[in-house]
Amino acid sequence: MDGFAVIAEDTYGATPTAPVFLRTLGSVQIGTAPTVRVGRGEAASTVTGGRMPQGANAVVMVEYTNEREDGTVEVSDEVHPAENIARAGEDVRKGSIVLRKGTRILPQDLGMLTCLGLNQVAVMRKPRVAVLSTGSELQNEPSVSSNRIPDVNRPTLISALHQLGCEPVDLGIVPDEFEQIRSKLEQGIKTADIVLVTAGTSVGPGDMVPKVINSLGKPGMLVHGVAMRPSMPTGLAVVDGKLVVSLPGYPVSAYIAFLEFVEPLVAYALETNPLPCPVVKARLSRRVTGVLGSRTYVRVLVTCGDEGHIAEPVRTSGAGILSSLVQANGFVIVPEHIEGYEEGQEVDVELFRPPEREQIVK
Amino acid sequence: MDGFAVIAEDTYGATPTAPVFLRTLGSVQIGTAPTVRVGRGEAASTVTGGRMPQGANAVVMVEYTNEREDGTVEVSDEVHPAENIARAGEDVRKGSIVLRKGTRILPQDLGMLTCLGLNQVAVMRKPRVAVLSTGSELQNEPSVSSNRIPDVNRPTLISALHQLGCEPVDLGIVPDEFEQIRSKLEQGIKTADIVLVTAGTSVGPGDMVPKVINSLGKPGMLVHGVAMRPSMPTGLAVVDGKLVVSLPGYPVSAYIAFLEFVEPLVAYALETNPLPCPVVKARLSRRVTGVLGSRTYVRVLVTCGDEGHIAEPVRTSGAGILSSLVQANGFVIVPEHIEGYEEGQEVDVELFRPPEREQIVK
Repeated sequence: MDGFAVIAEDTYGATPTAPVFLRTLGSVQIGTAPTVRVGRGEAASTVTGGRMPQGANAVVMVEYTNEREDGTVEVSDEVHPAENIARAGEDVRKGSIVLRKGTRILPQDLGMLTCLGLNQVAVMRKPRVAVLSTGSELQNEPSVSSNRIPDVNRPTLISALHQLGCEPVDLGIVPDEFEQIRSKLEQGIKTADIVLVTAGTSVGPGDMVPKVINSLGKPGMLVHGVAMRPSMPTGLAVVDGKLVVSLPGYPVSAYIAFLEFVEPLVAYALETNPLPCPVVKARLSRRVTGVLGSRTYVRVLVTCGDEGHIAEPVRTSGAGILSSLVQANGFVIVPEHIEGYEEGQEVDVELFRPPEREQIVK
Repeated sequence: MDGFAVIAEDTYGATPTAPVFLRTLGSVQIGTAPTVRVGRGEAASTVTGGRMPQGANAVVMVEYTNEREDGTVEVSDEVHPAENIARAGEDVRKGSIVLRKGTRILPQDLGMLTCLGLNQVAVMRKPRVAVLSTGSELQNEPSVSSNRIPDVNRPTLISALHQLGCEPVDLGIVPDEFEQIRSKLEQGIKTADIVLVTAGTSVGPGDMVPKVINSLGKPGMLVHGVAMRPSMPTGLAVVDGKLVVSLPGYPVSAYIAFLEFVEPLVAYALETNPLPCPVVKARLSRRVTGVLGSRTYVRVLVTCGDEGHIAEPVRTSGAGILSSLVQANGFVIVPEHIEGYEEGQEVDVELFRPPEREQIVK
């Protein structure tokens, strides 16, 4: 603290009406070793960040002192030993654990590491996550003249993986052919920790991904089909100790299944927990319906008005309508056991973007 | 959809007990232009992702069909025109706005841009934010033998700025000398959009930052001192149209003031809104006190037990105790008008890390 380094006992009983007078020894220079030694009846001027001079055991704050021209300082408040002093080890004690394994390093943690001179720390290897798109109709770029459609899932998932701190491995696109899918999945299982494969997981003639996965090793498909809308055809598999997640082909389904299943798997691989999603209470601008027995993810746009938050369900909401995720800023999740929520009802919205506000006028 | 492309009117009245029979024309190959043309009484086998053959106006899902060996398909459900078909423009209509200025690009937005062939989009320049540490006691590295202490604020703030999508400009450390601080701040104001300067903002003899800022241009200091604990000596200034934020020197104060004031300023500079912080309800394991008239930020560790979340206030909590931010995972904010919260009371905790859980046994 800015003030005077003293022997606490010298200040006992000091008040504004009955101050104590101490002989000043000059000042402690910041950033250098103190050259003075404080004895009984003495005080050395000091500043925040300065080292304590020998002999002194407390600091009287400058607010309670009045330096006089006769070489003394008037002290109008008492201090106790160790008062207004930072002691060695008060922040981090020798031998204590500062950051545990599984901690995502935040700015303050980096500050702490710097403070301790730990310029290198062991961190987890980024999980390698392979991404394969299947579908004879897919190509990388959109083109009006072609009969194919652009692959939306790979760029979306690769971007999401980067955000989660993973190292994505791009396995490209394969047509709906057993051997081609098999060879790419095999490559993914060899090189990555987790393999994501989109489409081919439904019941149509081209939907052979589960069969391919089962042909690759044991135990194969563990789950095929989950009680959620969208994303119902999601599958989870283990092949030779590697996780394989079979995501639906529709972009909205694939991405919601990613959020629901792949995010926690990545957190698990990193031995950490994911930060919970921000949630706001909002009133529904109209009724939303779920599917009994399934958990339904309704995409909504939350706006922040004078009377609180309003959640407007995004009109066009098929699993193939990517704009439903682009226009929305949150999910209203209708649980399995209820049919929906009424217009005007207050619901929790899990936000992935900030609520819309009135534009700030610049 | 996987199924048969038909003329919807041909299926009217079809039920499992009174199916309709249509002549099969062969199948639509995925990824190629359809070669068949569907007429009245006809159907072409098709798959999800295939182009619609000419003449057809709907698809009967494969579940409601039974292909027979006599060249016909049995249809057991009726479809309406446009049913099970994705129409051009149903996701994004020509001329519509897909992403507004001020949107932080999320994975699904990237998917959408790819889908539209927009491989390059105009984005906001990253705000340049300069960071200067003041204090004659500071040095970059810790050292037991020296009389100086390591500068924690610069690495912490620079890391936080990176996370916010800014371009940090490191102005280094200057001692508590008017001209040196002035020259560095001048450099910051010239090169950056926002300037952060830590310490020197209190009332001690070395605290000259506000004076320096006022000497640099108009209007100078707008706010000096805010009703919050920690971070009270925070100052906000404008010099020649540039924002200067004078942050306290104590690391905890500096970082909390950064979260409270600099984060929203950066969002404003980017013309976006910050995503709200995740909040959980938790019971306090012991009483916390605030300072009447000030908003108090209590650092807590939230654990997730069988009976809900428990918030344990971090014991050592001075503004200089960086470990209070490293050990904590959230803030309980005691508002200005109340003295504190009681033990056992349920409070909102703003989380910056996930709640602690029982370790998952691997």
